[in-house]
Amino acid sequence: MSLIGKEVQPFTAQAYLNGDFIEVTEENLKGQWSVVCFYPADFTFVCPTELEDLQNEYPALKELGVEVFSVSRDSHFTHKAWHDSSEAIGKITYTMIGDPAHVLSRNFDVLVEELGQADRGTFIIDPDGIIQAVEINADGIGRDASTLINKIKAAQYVRNNPGEVCPAKWQEGGATLKPSLDLVGKI
Amino acid sequence: MSLIGKEVQPFTAQAYLNGDFIEVTEENLKGQWSVVCFYPADFTFVCPTELEDLQNEYPALKELGVEVFSVSRDSHFTHKAWHDSSEAIGKITYTMIGDPAHVLSRNFDVLVEELGQADRGTFIIDPDGIIQAVEINADGIGRDASTLINKIKAAQYVRNNPGEVCPAKWQEGGATLKPSLDLVGKI
Amino acid sequence: MSLIGKEVQPFTAQAYLNGDFIEVTEENLKGQWSVVCFYPADFTFVCPTELEDLQNEYPALKELGVEVFSVSRDSHFTHKAWHDSSEAIGKITYTMIGDPAHVLSRNFDVLVEELGQADRGTFIIDPDGIIQAVEINADGIGRDASTLINKIKAAQYVRNNPGEVCPAKWQEGGATLKPSLDLVGKI
Amino acid sequence: MSLIGKEVQPFTAQAYLNGDFIEVTEENLKGQWSVVCFYPADFTFVCPTELEDLQNEYPALKELGVEVFSVSRDSHFTHKAWHDSSEAIGKITYTMIGDPAHVLSRNFDVLVEELGQADRGTFIIDPDGIIQAVEINADGIGRDASTLINKIKAAQYVRNNPGEVCPAKWQEGGATLKPSLDLVGKI
Amino acid sequence: MSLIGKEVQPFTAQAYLNGDFIEVTEENLKGQWSVVCFYPADFTFVCPTELEDLQNEYPALKELGVEVFSVSRDSHFTHKAWHDSSEAIGKITYTMIGDPAHVLSRNFDVLVEELGQADRGTFIIDPDGIIQAVEINADGIGRDASTLINKIKAAQYVRNNPGEVCPAKWQEGGATLKPSLDLVGKI
Amino acid sequence: MSLIGKEVQPFTAQAYLNGDFIEVTEENLKGQWSVVCFYPADFTFVCPTELEDLQNEYPALKELGVEVFSVSRDSHFTHKAWHDSSEAIGKITYTMIGDPAHVLSRNFDVLVEELGQADRGTFIIDPDGIIQAVEINADGIGRDASTLINKIKAAQYVRNNPGEVCPAKWQEGGATLKPSLDLVGKI
Amino acid sequence: MSLIGKEVQPFTAQAYLNGDFIEVTEENLKGQWSVVCFYPADFTFVCPTELEDLQNEYPALKELGVEVFSVSRDSHFTHKAWHDSSEAIGKITYTMIGDPAHVLSRNFDVLVEELGQADRGTFIIDPDGIIQAVEINADGIGRDASTLINKIKAAQYVRNNPGEVCPAKWQEGGATLKPSLDLVGKI
Amino acid sequence: MSLIGKEVQPFTAQAYLNGDFIEVTEENLKGQWSVVCFYPADFTFVCPTELEDLQNEYPALKELGVEVFSVSRDSHFTHKAWHDSSEAIGKITYTMIGDPAHVLSRNFDVLVEELGQADRGTFIIDPDGIIQAVEINADGIGRDASTLINKIKAAQYVRNNPGEVCPAKWQEGGATLKPSLDLVGKI
Amino acid sequence: MSLIGKEVQPFTAQAYLNGDFIEVTEENLKGQWSVVCFYPADFTFVCPTELEDLQNEYPALKELGVEVFSVSRDSHFTHKAWHDSSEAIGKITYTMIGDPAHVLSRNFDVLVEELGQADRGTFIIDPDGIIQAVEINADGIGRDASTLINKIKAAQYVRNNPGEVCPAKWQEGGATLKPSLDLVGKI
Amino acid sequence: MSLIGKEVQPFTAQAYLNGDFIEVTEENLKGQWSVVCFYPADFTFVCPTELEDLQNEYPALKELGVEVFSVSRDSHFTHKAWHDSSEAIGKITYTMIGDPAHVLSRNFDVLVEELGQADRGTFIIDPDGIIQAVEINADGIGRDASTLINKIKAAQYVRNNPGEVCPAKWQEGGATLKPSLDLVGKI
Repeated sequence: MSLIGKEVQPFTAQAYLNGDFIEVTEENLKGQWSVVCFYPADFTFVCPTELEDLQNEYPALKELGVEVFSVSRDSHFTHKAWHDSSEAIGKITYTMIGDPAHVLSRNFDVLVEELGQADRGTFIIDPDGIIQAVEINADGIGRDASTLINKIKAAQYVRNNPGEVCPAKWQEGGATLKPSLDLVGKI
Repeated sequence: MSLIGKEVQPFTAQAYLNGDFIEVTEENLKGQWSVVCFYPADFTFVCPTELEDLQNEYPALKELGVEVFSVSRDSHFTHKAWHDSSEAIGKITYTMIGDPAHVLSRNFDVLVEELGQADRGTFIIDPDGIIQAVEINADGIGRDASTLINKIKAAQYVRNNPGEVCPAKWQEGGATLKPSLDLVGKI
Repeated sequence: MSLIGKEVQPFTAQAYLNGDFIEVTEENLKGQWSVVCFYPADFTFVCPTELEDLQNEYPALKELGVEVFSVSRDSHFTHKAWHDSSEAIGKITYTMIGDPAHVLSRNFDVLVEELGQADRGTFIIDPDGIIQAVEINADGIGRDASTLINKIKAAQYVRNNPGEVCPAKWQEGGATLKPSLDLVGKI
Repeated sequence: MSLIGKEVQPFTAQAYLNGDFIEVTEENLKGQWSVVCFYPADFTFVCPTELEDLQNEYPALKELGVEVFSVSRDSHFTHKAWHDSSEAIGKITYTMIGDPAHVLSRNFDVLVEELGQADRGTFIIDPDGIIQAVEINADGIGRDASTLINKIKAAQYVRNNPGEVCPAKWQEGGATLKPSLDLVGKI
Repeated sequence: MSLIGKEVQPFTAQAYLNGDFIEVTEENLKGQWSVVCFYPADFTFVCPTELEDLQNEYPALKELGVEVFSVSRDSHFTHKAWHDSSEAIGKITYTMIGDPAHVLSRNFDVLVEELGQADRGTFIIDPDGIIQAVEINADGIGRDASTLINKIKAAQYVRNNPGEVCPAKWQEGGATLKPSLDLVGKI
Repeated sequence: MSLIGKEVQPFTAQAYLNGDFIEVTEENLKGQWSVVCFYPADFTFVCPTELEDLQNEYPALKELGVEVFSVSRDSHFTHKAWHDSSEAIGKITYTMIGDPAHVLSRNFDVLVEELGQADRGTFIIDPDGIIQAVEINADGIGRDASTLINKIKAAQYVRNNPGEVCPAKWQEGGATLKPSLDLVGKI
Repeated sequence: MSLIGKEVQPFTAQAYLNGDFIEVTEENLKGQWSVVCFYPADFTFVCPTELEDLQNEYPALKELGVEVFSVSRDSHFTHKAWHDSSEAIGKITYTMIGDPAHVLSRNFDVLVEELGQADRGTFIIDPDGIIQAVEINADGIGRDASTLINKIKAAQYVRNNPGEVCPAKWQEGGATLKPSLDLVGKI
Repeated sequence: MSLIGKEVQPFTAQAYLNGDFIEVTEENLKGQWSVVCFYPADFTFVCPTELEDLQNEYPALKELGVEVFSVSRDSHFTHKAWHDSSEAIGKITYTMIGDPAHVLSRNFDVLVEELGQADRGTFIIDPDGIIQAVEINADGIGRDASTLINKIKAAQYVRNNPGEVCPAKWQEGGATLKPSLDLVGKI
Repeated sequence: MSLIGKEVQPFTAQAYLNGDFIEVTEENLKGQWSVVCFYPADFTFVCPTELEDLQNEYPALKELGVEVFSVSRDSHFTHKAWHDSSEAIGKITYTMIGDPAHVLSRNFDVLVEELGQADRGTFIIDPDGIIQAVEINADGIGRDASTLINKIKAAQYVRNNPGEVCPAKWQEGGATLKPSLDLVGKI
Repeated sequence: MSLIGKEVQPFTAQAYLNGDFIEVTEENLKGQWSVVCFYPADFTFVCPTELEDLQNEYPALKELGVEVFSVSRDSHFTHKAWHDSSEAIGKITYTMIGDPAHVLSRNFDVLVEELGQADRGTFIIDPDGIIQAVEINADGIGRDASTLINKIKAAQYVRNNPGEVCPAKWQEGGATLKPSLDLVGKI
């Protein structure tokens, strides 16, 4: 069974955030919407473009009340060093979690054991810590963070409007559906 | 570990395709690029909007050499009946696979056992039958099939150009990256 | 050992009944006599003739205080759609249970695992939820619902008249037998 | 899973037939259609009425090429004695199998272990030894052998006419169905 | 280890006794001396001669305070029928136990599993339900019930005269032995 | 299941016979009829009377072609010493087997483990080494060897006349029975 | 690990002592020093010479407060008979234990299973039931009971004089050793 | 079962012998008679007196063709050092085996695991490597090597004179016994 | 995982210390810093040079509040004898633990099972009994005890100054490091 | 048992060496002497001082024919980045292995699972890939690479001069020992 609808499992990790080292647990993924973005490794090639892309969407995500966390098997020390030395990474203002013991990668089922690194997986988590959406790409294929915005808006709409669902390609303000017996076979 | 990089497992299923009942196996997912789109159930609400959306992208996908397969736990008989009675579904010209024994849903790890239905999971599969990308949404949140186009183009580019990778938000014709020691820490 | 004399196991299912979606549990099979009729699949061929035949006997069964439930692996959504589109099925006024997770099919031991569908099994259940009679046909052979009437009358007679049993071909009002030592070897 | 579609398992048993003791094996259930009728015990009450009823249908069944076997946990000696002493049983010309070691009752899944006797189960078996229909009643409720005729005619028709199926309440000469895509949702 | 010195195990059985059906349990084998006589099957050949022979000794046994029980895998119905139809068996006034579920045959270790019938075993049981003597013959060799008389007299003497034992060929009134150190090697 | 119909298991033992020590194996129990007589212990009280009684029947048994073996847990040395010192035992001319390792007692299922001694069991064995009759008495009750003569004659008659059986109380020259269908229920 | 330093395990046995049969348990081996002498079998060859030899030392052992027990797999009846008939054995005034169920032989680890007899083992046991010395010879080699005297004197000296030990070949009244750091390497 | 009659198990050990370090295996215990003498520890108190005592008997043992081996858990280095510094040990000319890995102590069943040292066990081994006699004393009680001489002479006599056995207290040249039926009960 | 950071496990051992035999437990390794030095065997070659070397550093170690323990599989008796006879070992004033049962060698993971001896392992243990440093050399390579001094000083500094760490080659009084975010990538 | 004397296990890893990424396997640790130096993490505090210290000894080690490998759980990308940005690390010319999947850390038994990082362990490996020395410090205590020189010289001397061993504190050119019986207890 996929992780959709499952609650995030407990963890404790060290992270780099805006010039500080902080501790992050599963509690930090609750109480607001969260995006958790796994990537294979610091100081590589596709990863910084994805993290920069995510940073570009960060203000929009924050407006939606979404917190952002990136995760790789590298330590918080390495995240700090990468932040210091890379122009793209240096812009990042969200939390960069270190996962050298592979705890989060295993919990989110994205660890490639023989490489000791994560798949390119993005998870949208609701304020109860429940996973609402997953997207994973093979290693050479970068993600597009802008697609997160609509998904989160749809997820938030559904959460806030029990009894309505968002159809395909739904955009904020667009029509939603109220499942009912009368609609069966009528769509 | 996620299914990224794994080969599709063997299966045999009955499907509805353009007014005919046909048999589909894992071999039909090989030899060309494929999109496999799971949805919970026929005759429901979000599902038809997603399947119609996927149909709208079908010509563009075909131009990229991509074949499309939808899958639910409903039988090919039910797919046929839905196709006959629903305006949206009636437009569909791709293969609608019946999975009443839950074989494919289990193979692709999207079966919700207690409901006997699949999560909203989309899989991009390369011509060798290897899964290259996964996207799964919670039940009330529709997918946007248009995001498949760029992902598949990127995956095809990477397959056709060994040694290059596609950065975040890559668009056809855009710059790619050639991983090299000189680039380490320079992006 | 066969299921005769066993109590129905607990379950929770969604069903279509007279234009409504309702929830059905094992408790709904108790307190009155029940007929539970499994069939392989909606939108097929023998099945609708059997369900229509059962509907034709439904008034007579109701007079005997018998409630009727049909069950297939299809969902309540599909049952509704079939009800809407099929002349035969559209007449049905008894409860059509959806069993996409195969819970009832397993409980009543009629699931064909590799097809994900049920055998053509009919069960007569007494007001205590105890199975009193079973009849199962291979897939291509339709049942005859009229034979249920006499069986149920005999079962009701035996329940209401402890110490009497109904001989072969017994018809309501016909002679019954009181097992006694004197009858041994005399019939 | 029910026994429908399963082949009869090997056995060797002693039987009484028309004034002789003979040996019967699973091979005797093949090569022609067979009805195997289990009943709880010789020298009891409902059982002789059922066996007599079955004898009454025996000529009609033979015309259909059907062989008949009754089975209880009593020995062939007891069957002989019952045949000698009971008017009803004395008429019987089909094979009466003794099953004191409970081998057949276990194979056909009708043994009530704590009583050492079988449920009232009737099985229709095709010339390949495959079980095509099952009917089991609780102990006090007699069966009606006449319902076997139509079931066997339907089963024979389906066997002889691949591609056709018999609808509910089908009678010899009545219309059958040829499952086809065009019929989906049209019945 | 043999069953000598073991207590009879609990059981519940139906039996035929003097024109009535009664229930018999292990308690009926206690409180007086008992003979339990297993035989293979009703309506056979050696068995009735043994049962008649046992009936002939029954008055003498009763004078010794001994109750008699015969047991076969046949039901009490069959015992009744045999009693009705056989001249030899019709004389029987002791209890004929039915053991179709093979419970007693297993408890007394005389069941031949593959035949579903008992060996020709006779058991002498004291008023505490303890087995004091066993005799078992192969199937074609009838027993001689008259040898029971002396054995039971010896067993009763030993029970009533603690400290004495009965030598070989002992007859009522004959000399017994008082085991003592002085007798060691002197007999 | 009892030992009736079972073949004697392999063993090797030391024995005392007519002033010599010899080795005895299961082969010595084949090729002629044998009586094997277990008793608890040498130098005790009932045992010598039984062994003397058996010696008295020994000539008659030899005329029937029967060999006799006594067995206790005592060694062949002790058998010799008993033979030397006891008047009764001194008469014995059959084979006295020593079983200090309890091999035969276990094989014939008469060992009382906590006492390290055998029950008073007598076994009649046919020339194929198959056990045909068993008789076991509790410890204080002596056996009567004369009852062996008739049993063995019956067993020999049945072996020599396939198709005939010996009724209860059968004596040499008496009528036997030929089991046949006509006799069922007629005895 | 050897049995040295282990406590004797519980047992109950019958024994012959001075014209009486008595019961012996492990408690009889406590409260005084004991010698337990196993031998293979009564009425054999080396054994009586050893038992007579042990009897010759018995007065000296009693003066040391030592009780003596001989044990073989023969019964107390056989011990009595041997005592009656053998000149050597007739002199014995210590306890002769019967071990036909092999309980003591197993407890003292001297049972040869395939022969059902004990090795020639002698055990010295202190008043707490703890084994202090063991000596075992192969079957044809007789023991010399006189060597027990010195061993027991040494064992008693050590028990009575904590902190002293007896050197090799120690004789009563001879010098002992007080282990101390100063003696290390000085002997 | 004791080790009497068992063959010594394979081992490889380092030993000190007459100023040299040598390797010893189980093969060195074969081809001649051997005495293996375990003791707890070098540089202790009783042990050197026993080893010296054994040395005193060594010439007599050699005349009997017996080789001598002492064994403790100490290494051959420690044996050498002890030999150098102790007057008693310095006299030793037989082989002193080191067993720091406890291999021999375990093989001869004398290891006290919690102390990592052996019991005071002496073993007589015949030229086939079969153990013929065992003697074990508790820790504070020294052995007397002179008792080995007679035991070995008896063991050698029995080996060289098949069919004769040595009675208790046998001395070289003394009478032996030829077991025969005539001697049973006569000793 | 290595033993670094693990607490020493419980043990009880006999030791030689300054002319006395004493008992040592894991409690003696707590309350002050300890060095535990394993070596293969007494009376060998490299070992005494290492133990002497360690003795030479002992005064300096004591000034640092460090207690020293040497351990080999030899007994405390052998340690005493070695101390008496060897010039180098005779100087030793620290505790020499005997480990003939291999308890400490197993606890510290340095036992070579097949030789029954320890590797050349040195352990530094803090006052809480936690292992802080390990050094192990192959058998022929002597250790240099002087390197312990600096390691212990560094370990003590770190323990006494939470928040500081000692860089490579640190000497007492030298600069230490205070890990902080600012230092990341700056060393 | 420690890793001393064990061969390095197979592995495949990516490493950074002098401006290139290379693949390293266990074969690279054979054919010459090797030092493998584990440390917890890149971009931390004690680690760079240790790696720089090791670099300072690298020329001397190379003269001894020793190759050097550092290992942490960081990737070769991170090693490259650290090399680029740190003055101390930038000097390094030996191989820096990345072990993000923890394969080497597990093989060398230094992985702290819950932190996903290695202990500070240094291993000396001979040209056959056999581990000859181990040194491990707790996390805050830096190592001193200069102590490797003497250890390796000693290990090389022992390898090149079979039959000699190096005493404690041995320096190149110093006296070695030839173990011989004469030296026992003389050092």
